[in-house]
Amino acid sequence: MGVLEAVQRELKALFGPRALLGPEKGVYRYDAILVGSEPLAVVLPESLEEVQALVRLARRYGFPLVPRGAGSGLSGGAVPEEGSLVVAFTRMLRLEVYPEAQAAFAEAGVPTARISEEARPYGLFYPPDPASWRTSTLGGNLGENAGGPLCFKYGVTGDYLLELEFVDAFGEAHRLSREAYDLPGLLVGSEGTLALLTGARVRLLPLPRHRATLMALFPGVEPLAEAVSRAVAQGALPAKLEFMDPVCVGAVEDYLGMGLPRGRALLLAETDGDDPELVEEELSLVERTALDLGAQVERAAGGEEAEALWRARRAVSPALGRIRPKRVNEDIAVPRSALPRVVGEIEALGRAFGLVVAQFGHIGDGNLHPNILFDPKVEPEAKVWELAHGIARVALRHGGVLSGEHGIGLMKRAFMAEAVDPETLGAFLRVKEALDPQGLLNPGKLLPDP
Amino acid sequence: MGVLEAVQRELKALFGPRALLGPEKGVYRYDAILVGSEPLAVVLPESLEEVQALVRLARRYGFPLVPRGAGSGLSGGAVPEEGSLVVAFTRMLRLEVYPEAQAAFAEAGVPTARISEEARPYGLFYPPDPASWRTSTLGGNLGENAGGPLCFKYGVTGDYLLELEFVDAFGEAHRLSREAYDLPGLLVGSEGTLALLTGARVRLLPLPRHRATLMALFPGVEPLAEAVSRAVAQGALPAKLEFMDPVCVGAVEDYLGMGLPRGRALLLAETDGDDPELVEEELSLVERTALDLGAQVERAAGGEEAEALWRARRAVSPALGRIRPKRVNEDIAVPRSALPRVVGEIEALGRAFGLVVAQFGHIGDGNLHPNILFDPKVEPEAKVWELAHGIARVALRHGGVLSGEHGIGLMKRAFMAEAVDPETLGAFLRVKEALDPQGLLNPGKLLPDP
Ligand SMILES: Cc1cc2nc3c(=O)[nH]c(=O)nc-3n(C[C@H](O)[C@H](O)[C@H](O)COP(=O)(O)OP(=O)(O)OC[C@H]3O[C@@H](n4cnc5c(N)ncnc54)[C@H](O)[C@@H]3O)c2cc1C
Ligand SMILES: Cc1cc2nc3c(=O)[nH]c(=O)nc-3n(C[C@H](O)[C@H](O)[C@H](O)COP(=O)(O)OP(=O)(O)OC[C@H]3O[C@@H](n4cnc5c(N)ncnc54)[C@H](O)[C@@H]3O)c2cc1C
Repeated sequence: MGVLEAVQRELKALFGPRALLGPEKGVYRYDAILVGSEPLAVVLPESLEEVQALVRLARRYGFPLVPRGAGSGLSGGAVPEEGSLVVAFTRMLRLEVYPEAQAAFAEAGVPTARISEEARPYGLFYPPDPASWRTSTLGGNLGENAGGPLCFKYGVTGDYLLELEFVDAFGEAHRLSREAYDLPGLLVGSEGTLALLTGARVRLLPLPRHRATLMALFPGVEPLAEAVSRAVAQGALPAKLEFMDPVCVGAVEDYLGMGLPRGRALLLAETDGDDPELVEEELSLVERTALDLGAQVERAAGGEEAEALWRARRAVSPALGRIRPKRVNEDIAVPRSALPRVVGEIEALGRAFGLVVAQFGHIGDGNLHPNILFDPKVEPEAKVWELAHGIARVALRHGGVLSGEHGIGLMKRAFMAEAVDPETLGAFLRVKEALDPQGLLNPGKLLPDP
Repeated sequence: MGVLEAVQRELKALFGPRALLGPEKGVYRYDAILVGSEPLAVVLPESLEEVQALVRLARRYGFPLVPRGAGSGLSGGAVPEEGSLVVAFTRMLRLEVYPEAQAAFAEAGVPTARISEEARPYGLFYPPDPASWRTSTLGGNLGENAGGPLCFKYGVTGDYLLELEFVDAFGEAHRLSREAYDLPGLLVGSEGTLALLTGARVRLLPLPRHRATLMALFPGVEPLAEAVSRAVAQGALPAKLEFMDPVCVGAVEDYLGMGLPRGRALLLAETDGDDPELVEEELSLVERTALDLGAQVERAAGGEEAEALWRARRAVSPALGRIRPKRVNEDIAVPRSALPRVVGEIEALGRAFGLVVAQFGHIGDGNLHPNILFDPKVEPEAKVWELAHGIARVALRHGGVLSGEHGIGLMKRAFMAEAVDPETLGAFLRVKEALDPQGLLNPGKLLPDP
């Protein structure tokens, strides 16, 4: 009997029908952006102990494990290499809210949005809100240290982590708070390369009592970026600050037909808090800077109007999909003061390459998603990737970073060598070697080849 | 020429009068709680490059480096082992505020309070505020992940770290933001055992426009803890929630004579925010729960009355020093809901040992400082340490942790074995081995002997 059969037999014995060995495992080749090899097998564990058993098995036979949440990742982090075993956490769904402690414990597979849904009856919420929050999992959010619109004011996934439960590459289980060496903090954002995360205790916050929303339409992207930069410097701390460039605005208008004017750049701002006057006052600060920079401003009269505006923002992804069949979704973050120049340079770069570039993102913290839209039948992919690298270089040149929130994964691996100096890379490799000496956990991700 | 002379000669060549080789280095044997060996030498670097040169020297000769800020630590973290070289960061004092970015860059030696002082003209502040903030340094705060009264609402030192500049055990310099592997996050709280921190870019917040303060006197510690637990569960999020038990109240009254009634437990609460009504409302919530539990409440009529109350809190340390010549300052953190039982059990434990125990601390996040006061001429130290361990065990039994904010250092090292399971300890040791294979950085701290 070959090794493969032996492994499959053991997996069947351990996991029964939750070990996928047939063609249905092909679905697990993809995340939301890249395609990899068909895995050896897919396993859907339901407990910490099962995850431990799986790691021990993988160690024994020496095959790599690829942790996976919902596969909504945008850098190929959950995409399997040849001959690996996918560990899909979507069956680990236990969720408990502790209202007194303003905390919740959730297993890795819990979809992000469910945490806030379960917390709401207690007047609490879980702030990190990636746009993918209905599908993405807490494990995947921890793996990528995901952010979202609310993260400008409230911080990212790692800021809400109180305790982390995980299985290390030796098959040992841990549940650690953030004292002594902050291993939980180290594992956040490690993209499945240092441990398998099985659950987390997260911090909840009281729901703010009031919100106010506005939309501002600017003559172009640069004045919009300038307005954001100025308003924030003056002390505005909106809960959300989202932007869409004219390409996005046009695409959404084609898609939803909601009467948005073409050729404008759109800013959505939402302030929140417990005091209605202050919430309005903070929004007025954004309004004034927008008006100063030539924008036309509309305030949402109530919850429904606000909801319609946010629908436009959420429609960006599907709307862009109708312009060209494929796209590369970049994810950069730059210092706020560099925003106007960065968005301008990226626009110019797109024109120079003759490719459609659409920009949107959580502009409050300088997190942009320049998307290159293309038709592989007409536009050579090599050119697209060249432009993508050009965009990343713009970010680095302006003191920015390579991954605002989507991670390095498979997609930006090669780029790490440019973004990080050799000494730091050396330190990263030493950490990887210490925690996963066999190189079992998500090989070929995040770190470039040594 | 012996090795020692060779090292001293090189240090002199590199650092001139900033290499202390004579008796004045004896001062660097202490932190605020323990005494160690006289170091081989003390060096006061003034730049990143000098720190690198020092690490290279230490590697070459194989002698250990003990990083030191102000030496205000309470767990012996900066106390030197036999034959080591102390690196005192108190000359690295560069500080720049970037009001537009709501951030500051400070070198390791900058006293904590100076960051807020320099930020104030821009309407900004740096929230982490250990009671030692006039003397303690940013480097020491990062080393211990220090908290303070404001940290209940605002979070601890690590929550404000944007970028970390450090020299690793190989002498390489790094300046890293918190992407990919979060090494900055790992180094926070590592007590000088993984790297020498030379500076940090930290996040600032807008100063709140209003504050309100009250003092509540309870018949005992347990109802006080119960009131805190209830008020917070009901959604109160005061900026500060500090408590003093009857021993502390009596000591402060003896010291300051400000008319505090004896035999009571004292709670100080401060709320802050931009809206005066909400600030009052939040304080009223604390007031009502306090009244329900039999407290007598006094609101500060204005800034000066509030200041007088905070003066009482700050006087605790010197005041306790007058009761007995020595003390052991414990530092535990327990879940808020366990507070009433924990403070009660610690009181009882002190009585059973026949030793004076005074309790105070940042009670909002369950961080208590039970202090054992003793006279070494009368009360055997062994008994004191036995009680200290007993107190730590109370914390662990109630789901708490060993170090609320003062770190493990030298003092609680042996205890790590009880607090952390062997697998986790193994993971800590692997991290240490990876980042400091020669064991050059602050040996004998934080981790127990393998
Ligand atoms: C339409 C759309 C909008 C998006 N918007 C945002 C946004 O606003 N903000 C944002 O940050 N991201 C966004 N994303 C990206 C993506 O949703 C996030 O990166 C999310 O965190 C991925 O979660 P997931 O469960 O799908 O993880 P996956 O894609 O399955 O995995 C992501 C990474 O985490 C690792 N991983 C997953 N689970 C575990 C585990 N249990 N233990 C260890 N490692 C694990 C994987 O190996 C992989 O490296 C968006 C994606 C889409 C498609
Ligand atoms: C009266 C009093 C009140 C206090 N109140 C509080 C409080 O409210 N909250 C609180 O958290 N603490 C408190 N402390 C404890 C202490 O002030 C803190 O731990 C503080 O962070 C120590 O800073 P320091 O500069 O004195 O560091 P040190 O004591 O010199 O060093 C502390 C640790 O950090 C390491 N270290 C120092 N500098 C560096 C560096 N540049 N690179 C790497 N490692 C370094 C040292 O090796 C050591 O392990 C108090 C202490 C006193 C005496």
